[in-house]
Amino acid sequence: MSAPAWLPLRPELREEEPYGAPQIDVPVRLNTNENPYGPSEAVAADVAESVRAAALGLNRYPDREATTLREALAGYLSREVPGLDASRVWAANGSNEVMQQILQAFGGPGRTALSFAPTYSMYPEYARNTHTRWVTGRRRDDFGIDVDTALELIAAEQPDVVFLTSPNNPTGTALDPEHTRAVLDAAPGMVVVDEAYAEFRRAGTPTALELLDGHPRLVVTRTMSKAFALAGGRLGYLAAHPDVVDALRIVRLPYHLSAVTQATAVAALRHTDELLAQVDALRAERDRTAERLRGAGFTVADSDANFVLFGMFDDRHATWQALVDRGVLVRETGPLGWLRVSIGTPEEMDAFHTALTEVTDV
Amino acid sequence: MSAPAWLPLRPELREEEPYGAPQIDVPVRLNTNENPYGPSEAVAADVAESVRAAALGLNRYPDREATTLREALAGYLSREVPGLDASRVWAANGSNEVMQQILQAFGGPGRTALSFAPTYSMYPEYARNTHTRWVTGRRRDDFGIDVDTALELIAAEQPDVVFLTSPNNPTGTALDPEHTRAVLDAAPGMVVVDEAYAEFRRAGTPTALELLDGHPRLVVTRTMSKAFALAGGRLGYLAAHPDVVDALRIVRLPYHLSAVTQATAVAALRHTDELLAQVDALRAERDRTAERLRGAGFTVADSDANFVLFGMFDDRHATWQALVDRGVLVRETGPLGWLRVSIGTPEEMDAFHTALTEVTDV
Repeated sequence: MSAPAWLPLRPELREEEPYGAPQIDVPVRLNTNENPYGPSEAVAADVAESVRAAALGLNRYPDREATTLREALAGYLSREVPGLDASRVWAANGSNEVMQQILQAFGGPGRTALSFAPTYSMYPEYARNTHTRWVTGRRRDDFGIDVDTALELIAAEQPDVVFLTSPNNPTGTALDPEHTRAVLDAAPGMVVVDEAYAEFRRAGTPTALELLDGHPRLVVTRTMSKAFALAGGRLGYLAAHPDVVDALRIVRLPYHLSAVTQATAVAALRHTDELLAQVDALRAERDRTAERLRGAGFTVADSDANFVLFGMFDDRHATWQALVDRGVLVRETGPLGWLRVSIGTPEEMDAFHTALTEVTDV
Repeated sequence: MSAPAWLPLRPELREEEPYGAPQIDVPVRLNTNENPYGPSEAVAADVAESVRAAALGLNRYPDREATTLREALAGYLSREVPGLDASRVWAANGSNEVMQQILQAFGGPGRTALSFAPTYSMYPEYARNTHTRWVTGRRRDDFGIDVDTALELIAAEQPDVVFLTSPNNPTGTALDPEHTRAVLDAAPGMVVVDEAYAEFRRAGTPTALELLDGHPRLVVTRTMSKAFALAGGRLGYLAAHPDVVDALRIVRLPYHLSAVTQATAVAALRHTDELLAQVDALRAERDRTAERLRGAGFTVADSDANFVLFGMFDDRHATWQALVDRGVLVRETGPLGWLRVSIGTPEEMDAFHTALTEVTDV
């Protein structure tokens, strides 16, 4: 796409494409790290009843502070780190709105954000949309962060915001908490640890939530899209120092979270145990997927998430297309030669393995 | 509020307060131009059933293009201007997200936005959040736009985005369409006509939707918050040239509209006639309110909206506070000496008039 000459679009956007994974209607969709297990009829009914009650008051603006929701999210996070309260939690329409608000408050013109590639491909778009200078360091070949290289880059660039991602997308790599701590000590600005996939981490992998006390410039972001199976509900959130939350309230659009969104998320959080019940099954399926891929001769990155990066392909696009032709949609993302597959149901993963065998045996 | 020294907040935000009308729990809330008539049980039940169906699929991301919703909105706008289709309609979480996206695409660093004060107090915040230079022209004493002065300012400033507001908030003033046309001919960039209150305009007042054909740089914004009584649903939208819509798809956050929001708005649009049924009553109550205020000796701005600006008060804050003390919340906004009252039910307006008489007779 190229914008027509008469349209006074910002020059840097003229040749841009809207972001988004290809949406292709195939039987097996393993491309956007969705949870394959939808909410039950009981959860849907509770969401609906909560929305019905809220709907009677929809002529009024919603609670601008989303207090009930933030209390519920704080309660959930307190399972991992006891004592978190609503003053340390903020929520928005998906973690991408959370990230945009962070860059509106702490990034912007004349400021720099830094991440370590390969990592989540939306970050540069958040930076572009907020006019934040974007700097990319490199991860090691095993997709971990080399802490000496990272600290050198931080010293040189003095970034206002550092994005760490743990587990990292699209590689699945969890961050060593000692590395997070080292970055926090060295970075002059905010450090955002994106934990969108935290609930899928392997046993013994720590969360950056444990570092919040004593690190007021740390922000840990989470989402209800993945483990909570609520991608369609668009609810991202973060935990941080209360003053960081207050800063975000300045740049947030007033009433950014609708009464319907708040009611839906609060209802879903009442069913936390049920919604998270499939996380263990998905972790087991992830580990099985990695084993089967390795058994078939592929290289597989260790994953603490609900997806697996595998390769190497001389022509990954050809493999991606051949899988699509067999009704299996994976994601062509990450470093050249790799593909990413989200963890679906056992039946979906069988279909994936069968299609991959057909495609790569030819 | 002042941000603590350790927090690396952008300097221009350090002394800022979060935007929002005071939220005070009083019996008569006439401060945020909400529709006093909530959705019926039948509408709430239909919204809930739509959300229940959507909830079963909430593990999947929503339709990024919100196609069904945009088709429904286009159908609604076609009542006023036949032939509008979804390619010319865009939607977001409230018109404030619509406005932010417009400035992300067409404003930003090195660019200028212009409006004519007194007008909606959020515009400068959208400009601040997108780093757009903000220029303010003045309205005439009757709150209309002096077209010669406006064209001079446009020639001098060459704004990338002009915001016109019709009916204007907080004055209620509708724009002369010949003035809109003159601004469109003179302005080098985008012209946004904010028609949040369009459904309340008096008979014979035209909408800028009629100017869309032949004016590709025109954007007309609307909201479901006011006439549709859906403030809690957060659904703003616009009509524009399809290339403008495509440009906004570049800066929108992917999946910005949740499946729940889309389902709610589509359900509400199925009940358009019922939800808009109170608009005539609110217009009549507005005209009655203006007459009673004038009868009591107040100055009242002509209003095409669901609120009325009235004055003049030597100390408007004292009057505002005295009304709050009597359980009536109006808005202290607009030029010095004026107050704005939203149109509520006849009972609420009686309470307002009674309290105002008590307060001003002292």
